[in-house]
Amino acid sequence: MVLRFLTAASVAAVMLCAEEGMWTFDNPPIRQLQEKYHFTPTQAWLDHVRLSSVRMNDGGSGSFVSPHGLLLTNHHVARGQLQKSSTAERDYIRDGFYAATEAEEIKAPDLEVNVLVSMEDVTARVNEAVKGAAGAEAEFAARKSVIAQIERESEKQTGLRSDVVTLYQGGEYWLYRYKKYTDLRIVFAPEAQTAFFGGDPDNFTYPRYDLDLALFRVYENGKPIDSTNYLKWNPRGAEDGELVFVSGNPAGTQRQDTVAQLEFERSVREPLILKLLKSRVAALQAYSARGQEQARQAASMIFGLQNGIKAYEGRYRGLQDPALIEKKRKDEQEFRAAVAAKQELESRYGGAWDEIARAEQEAAARIRPLIFEDPDSSLANLARTIVEYVAEIRKPDGKRLRGFHDAQLDSLRFRMFSPAPIYPEFEIARLTASLELAKQELPADDPVLKIVLDGRTPRQAAEALVNGSKLADPAMRKTLVEGGEAAVAASTDSMIVLARKLDPHHREMIHWEEDHVESVEQRAGEQLGRARFAVYGKTTYPDATFTLRLSYGQVKGYPMNGTIAPPKTTFYGLYDRSASFDNKPPFNLPERYVKGRDQLDLATPLDFVTTNDIIGGNSGSPVINRAGEIVGLIFDGNIESLPGDFVYQGETNRAVAVHTAAMTEALKKLYHAQKLLDEMIGGE
Amino acid sequence: MVLRFLTAASVAAVMLCAEEGMWTFDNPPIRQLQEKYHFTPTQAWLDHVRLSSVRMNDGGSGSFVSPHGLLLTNHHVARGQLQKSSTAERDYIRDGFYAATEAEEIKAPDLEVNVLVSMEDVTARVNEAVKGAAGAEAEFAARKSVIAQIERESEKQTGLRSDVVTLYQGGEYWLYRYKKYTDLRIVFAPEAQTAFFGGDPDNFTYPRYDLDLALFRVYENGKPIDSTNYLKWNPRGAEDGELVFVSGNPAGTQRQDTVAQLEFERSVREPLILKLLKSRVAALQAYSARGQEQARQAASMIFGLQNGIKAYEGRYRGLQDPALIEKKRKDEQEFRAAVAAKQELESRYGGAWDEIARAEQEAAARIRPLIFEDPDSSLANLARTIVEYVAEIRKPDGKRLRGFHDAQLDSLRFRMFSPAPIYPEFEIARLTASLELAKQELPADDPVLKIVLDGRTPRQAAEALVNGSKLADPAMRKTLVEGGEAAVAASTDSMIVLARKLDPHHREMIHWEEDHVESVEQRAGEQLGRARFAVYGKTTYPDATFTLRLSYGQVKGYPMNGTIAPPKTTFYGLYDRSASFDNKPPFNLPERYVKGRDQLDLATPLDFVTTNDIIGGNSGSPVINRAGEIVGLIFDGNIESLPGDFVYQGETNRAVAVHTAAMTEALKKLYHAQKLLDEMIGGE
Repeated sequence: MVLRFLTAASVAAVMLCAEEGMWTFDNPPIRQLQEKYHFTPTQAWLDHVRLSSVRMNDGGSGSFVSPHGLLLTNHHVARGQLQKSSTAERDYIRDGFYAATEAEEIKAPDLEVNVLVSMEDVTARVNEAVKGAAGAEAEFAARKSVIAQIERESEKQTGLRSDVVTLYQGGEYWLYRYKKYTDLRIVFAPEAQTAFFGGDPDNFTYPRYDLDLALFRVYENGKPIDSTNYLKWNPRGAEDGELVFVSGNPAGTQRQDTVAQLEFERSVREPLILKLLKSRVAALQAYSARGQEQARQAASMIFGLQNGIKAYEGRYRGLQDPALIEKKRKDEQEFRAAVAAKQELESRYGGAWDEIARAEQEAAARIRPLIFEDPDSSLANLARTIVEYVAEIRKPDGKRLRGFHDAQLDSLRFRMFSPAPIYPEFEIARLTASLELAKQELPADDPVLKIVLDGRTPRQAAEALVNGSKLADPAMRKTLVEGGEAAVAASTDSMIVLARKLDPHHREMIHWEEDHVESVEQRAGEQLGRARFAVYGKTTYPDATFTLRLSYGQVKGYPMNGTIAPPKTTFYGLYDRSASFDNKPPFNLPERYVKGRDQLDLATPLDFVTTNDIIGGNSGSPVINRAGEIVGLIFDGNIESLPGDFVYQGETNRAVAVHTAAMTEALKKLYHAQKLLDEMIGGE
Repeated sequence: MVLRFLTAASVAAVMLCAEEGMWTFDNPPIRQLQEKYHFTPTQAWLDHVRLSSVRMNDGGSGSFVSPHGLLLTNHHVARGQLQKSSTAERDYIRDGFYAATEAEEIKAPDLEVNVLVSMEDVTARVNEAVKGAAGAEAEFAARKSVIAQIERESEKQTGLRSDVVTLYQGGEYWLYRYKKYTDLRIVFAPEAQTAFFGGDPDNFTYPRYDLDLALFRVYENGKPIDSTNYLKWNPRGAEDGELVFVSGNPAGTQRQDTVAQLEFERSVREPLILKLLKSRVAALQAYSARGQEQARQAASMIFGLQNGIKAYEGRYRGLQDPALIEKKRKDEQEFRAAVAAKQELESRYGGAWDEIARAEQEAAARIRPLIFEDPDSSLANLARTIVEYVAEIRKPDGKRLRGFHDAQLDSLRFRMFSPAPIYPEFEIARLTASLELAKQELPADDPVLKIVLDGRTPRQAAEALVNGSKLADPAMRKTLVEGGEAAVAASTDSMIVLARKLDPHHREMIHWEEDHVESVEQRAGEQLGRARFAVYGKTTYPDATFTLRLSYGQVKGYPMNGTIAPPKTTFYGLYDRSASFDNKPPFNLPERYVKGRDQLDLATPLDFVTTNDIIGGNSGSPVINRAGEIVGLIFDGNIESLPGDFVYQGETNRAVAVHTAAMTEALKKLYHAQKLLDEMIGGE
C-alpha cells in the first residue's frame, strides 16, 4: 500500500513556508493551524471575522470595532478623505480630528466600503460558457460576457454588489456578494506626524513608532448602522509568540507568475514604472515648494507616490536577487516536469508557459505608450470616464469595456460625482509635468501626444486644457452624464473635447491589450491553474486579488542588520527616535506628544511585528487573537517583506501593526477620547 | 607645461574616500582637513593628542582625562582585569565597581599601557643592513637582526620601550619609543549589563545603547602620575555634523594585501578560523552551563570569542562581496599596469605579486596544523613560553625567536608572572575540547596530537596534564625561569614535560613559516610598498599595526535597512530596547537603571556614530573635537564596518562611541561619582 502514495499528486506537494498564505475564507488553513498551534477555528469564528472585516475602496481594509458602526482603519487609508475634507483653513491632516459627538462627525466625500456577505463557486458555469469558443480572443469575450451576466443577475436578485472573482489564475471563479456602504463619517484621526512618524525614510521599515489609525462611523439612511458583527477591543494587545490572524484585502500578488512574467517585470515593466513614479514625485515636490497651501494640496499624493516608489524598489530588488529567481526557476521546472510526465496533462496544459512568454514579448513592444501616454490630471481622467460612460451604458452589458458593467455602475457613479475639491493650479502642474515626461520618453509622432499638445508646449497645453474646463464642478459632470451621448458630443469643455479626440485611440489600445496579452495570459493562466490543481491538489492559496483573505502567524522579532529586531516597540522608542534626530522632520513630534509625555506610560507597546503573510491592500486590517478579539492594526510590512509580491520569506518577512495598548493609551491620555474607548470596550 | 602633470605619479593618485585613513602622527591628513573642514591642527595640538593617548596592551586604547593619571577606556578593554580581580564572592563584572577614594582602588593584575613619546624614521638603516643579503631568507634574518639591534640600543639609551614598526609593508621602518606603565588601579566600572547592553546580538551593530566605559588610575612609584597631557572633559559632547578625531591603536588591516592574499583569506584561512572560534565558544558555553561560578569564570573568554566570531563573519561576508573583490582586482590591475609601464619599476618590483601568490599556496598546504594543533590552555601556553624563554635568552638578540628580543622581555615577564587566577576545572574543559577538535580536523598521525594524547582520550590527557602541573602558581613559574635551562630540563611538571617534547616541532613550524611564507611576503610586500611610493607618492596611510594613529571624520547617520540610522541615540532608546524584549537578557537592565530612571534626563545623548576610519584595537580611543577636548569614547564599529579590514566604505562605515553627555549624566545621577567628574572637569 506504500506505493499508493507515490503518485505525482502526493509526492509533489506544494512546499509552503510556515505561516505562508493569504487564504480564502472557503479554504482556511485548518490543518496548518491544528498542527502548529493546536487551534481549530469554528465556522462561527470564521463567519464572525469575515463579517467584521471591511474592504475600503480607497485601497485598504478595516474592521468594525463597536456595535454602532465604528470602523477602524489606518490613517493612511483615511488620508485621502481627510485631505478632501480639509481646506486651507482647517487642515485635518496636520492637526488631526476628533468628533466628540455624532453631530460633529464629518461626511467622507467619496468613500465606499464593502462587507463580504457571501461566496459562491461559479467555476462550472463560467467554464461551460467558455467551452465552445474557438481561440483565446473568443474565449476571452465569452468569459467576459458570462461573468457580467452572473454579476448582473446577482445584483438584481439580491441588491448586493456582486463581483465574480478569478482565483488560482482561473482555476476557480467565485461570485462574491458585498453589502456596500457609502455614507461614512470621520470620527477620529491623529496628527499625520504621529500616524506617519518617520515619514518616507521609515516607511516600509521596522522598528517603527507610528500611531497609524483612523476611525470612521458607518451610516445608513442617516443613522449609524447596527454592526452586530464587530471585533471586541482587547486593550492588552498581543504578546510575543502569540498566534494572531489578519483578515483583510491584499490587493495583488504574482506568486504564481511564470518565470517569463517575472523576467518581463524585472527587465521591462518595473524600471519604467519607477521612472514614471519618480518623475511624478519630483513634479509634486516642485509644486509644493511654491507655498504652504500648495504643499497641503499635494501632500497626500506625494505620500502615496513615495509609498509606491519604495514598494516598487523593494519588489525590484527582490526580482534582482539571484536566489529568488533561481527558486522560481526550480519550482517552475518541477511543475513543468510533473505536467510533462502525464500525457493527458501535457497535451492540455503543456503549451501554456510558451504562450505566456510570447504574450510578454508582445506586451514589451507596446508598453512605453501604455505607461507614459496617460496624462496626470484628475480632470482628464474624469472627462475620459464620462466620454466612455455615455457610450458604454448603451451597449449590452457583456460587450462593454471593463469597469462599465452594470454591477459596477453604482460605485463608478459614486466616484464620478465626488464633491472632492480639484485645484486648477495643481492640475496644471501635474499635467504639464506628465506631458513633459511623455515628450521625453515617447517618439515625436506618438498619436496621443500629438493630439494633446497640438503644437503647443506642455505648459501651454496644460493651461489651456485646465482653464477651458468646468469639470471641477460635480454638477457639471452630472449634467453631462445625464445628457448622455448627445450632451457629450455637443460639449465644448476643453477636457471633454480632448477625451473625445483620444477615445478611438484608447479603445484601440484596450482591445489590442485584451486580444494580444490579457486573453492569452488568461487562457494560459487558467490552464496553469488547472494543471496546478491536477498536480498538487488544492493545497495552497490563490494569488491576492483585493478580496478578503485570512492569514495566520505569530508575534515575532527577526534577524536584522546583524542583530535582532524586537517583537514590539514602545513609546520610549518614539521619543528616542525623535530626540536622536534632534526632533527634525520627519522625526518631529506633534505638540500634544511633547506636552503629554509625562501622562504616558512610556513602556506601553506601540507597534509590533508578526509573521502574517500580507501585502499592499492589507493596510487597516485588524490583527485578531484566538478569541476573535482585535489586538492590533496592520499598517505596513517591513523592508524585507517587499519581495512578498513574488515570494514569502518567513525568516524575515514581517507585517507591522499598531498595538491596541498604544491606541488605548493615546486615545485616553493624549486625545481624551474616553468616550470612544467606552464604546469599543463596552465602558466601565 | 600641462604635460608635466601627465607623469604616472600625478595621473595615478590613490583614490581615498573622504575621511578614509588611519594616519600616523608624522603624516597627518592636513590637506584633507583643510579642504573639507578648514581646520589645520598645529604641531602642539598633534603632540598634545598623541601624549594624551594610551595603548592598552590587553588589546585596546585609552586616554588620560585628568591631570592625576585618570585613564578612560572601554569596559570591554578593562574586562579581563576586572575578571582577574573578581572572585566567586565579589563579581566586579556583574556588579561594577567604584573606588570613592584612592585607597579603595584595585591594582590590575597584569595590565601594561604605553604612551608613544617619540617616533624616528629608521628606514635607511634597516635597508642598509639588508642590502647585501642573498635571497628572501637571508634578507629576513638580516632585517630581524638589525631591528633587534636598533630596539636594544634604544632601550639601553633611553630606558623606554622601543619597537621598530614596519609601515607601508616595509616601505618605511620607524622606531617608536614608549613610556611604559605597569601599575594601574581600577577606579570605576559600571555593571557589565549596561556596558554591554544588548550582548552578542547588538555587538558590532547600531543603533546602540551601551555605557561601555571604565576608568583606571596610572601609578608610578606608588603614587598617581602627573599626567600633564590629558584631554579636557567636554560634557556637552559632539553634535551632528561636527568634525571629530580619534586617536588610538587600530590593531591591523589588510588594505594593501594583494588579491592573492585576499583570496587565501577568503577560501582558506577565514573558514578554518571561524570553525575554530565556534568550536571554542560551544565548549565554553557547555562549561558555563555547569553552574554559576563556572559561568563567571568563562564569561570574559566567551565574550571575546563571540566578538571575534562576529568580526570574522563580517570580514568573511565582505570578502564574499563580488563588488569588494572586483574593486580590489581593478586597483591591483591599475597598480600593476603603472609598474609595468616603467622598465625600472617593473624589473625591481614587477615579480612581487607572483611571489606572494606562490607563498600563499605554500601556506595553504600547512595551515590546518597551524590552526588546530594549538592547545586551548593557559597552563600549556605558559609552559611553552617558559621552555622557549630559558633557551632564547641565552642566544644573541638577533638570533632569537620572535617575541624574545631584549626590548620585549620586560613586558613578557610581566605577563609570564601575572598573578591572575587559573581554574583547573576550566583548564581541563578548554583543553579537552581543543584536543577533540584537533582529533576531528587533523590526520591521525599528526605529530603534535600524538605527543599530547599519547594513547589517551582527549579528556584523560587534559586531566593528567592539568592535574600534574603546578604552573597555576606564579611563584612556581618564577622558580623555573630563574633556574634557567637546567631547572626546566629537570622539571617533572606535566605541562613543562609536554612543552619540552613539543619544542622541536614548534621551532620547526616557526622556521618553516618564516622561510617559506613570512620572508617571501615581507620581501615582496616591501617591494610593493616601495613601488607604491614610486607610483603614487606618500599620499596615503599605512595599514594598521597596533600603533598610534589619528583618524578624522564627522558625526553622521547613514542609510540602514531601508531607512536612516540616527547620528546618536538617547537614554529613551535604552529603555525602549529593554522593554521591547520584555526586559529579557541580554536586554535586561541593572537594578540601578530601573530604580534610577526618573533621575535621568532621558533625552541625553547616549551613543553616537562618526565616519572615522577605525578597526579592532581602537576600542577605548577618545573622540576629540577641534579644541582637543574629549567628546566621546569609541567602543565599536557598526556591522557595515566589518569589511573595513580590507576596504573603507564611507557611505555606511561608522565608528560607534559613547557620548560624554551620557557618561556625565550616569556618573553623576546613577553612580553618584561627582568626585570623578570634578577631577575631570576641574569643577567645584
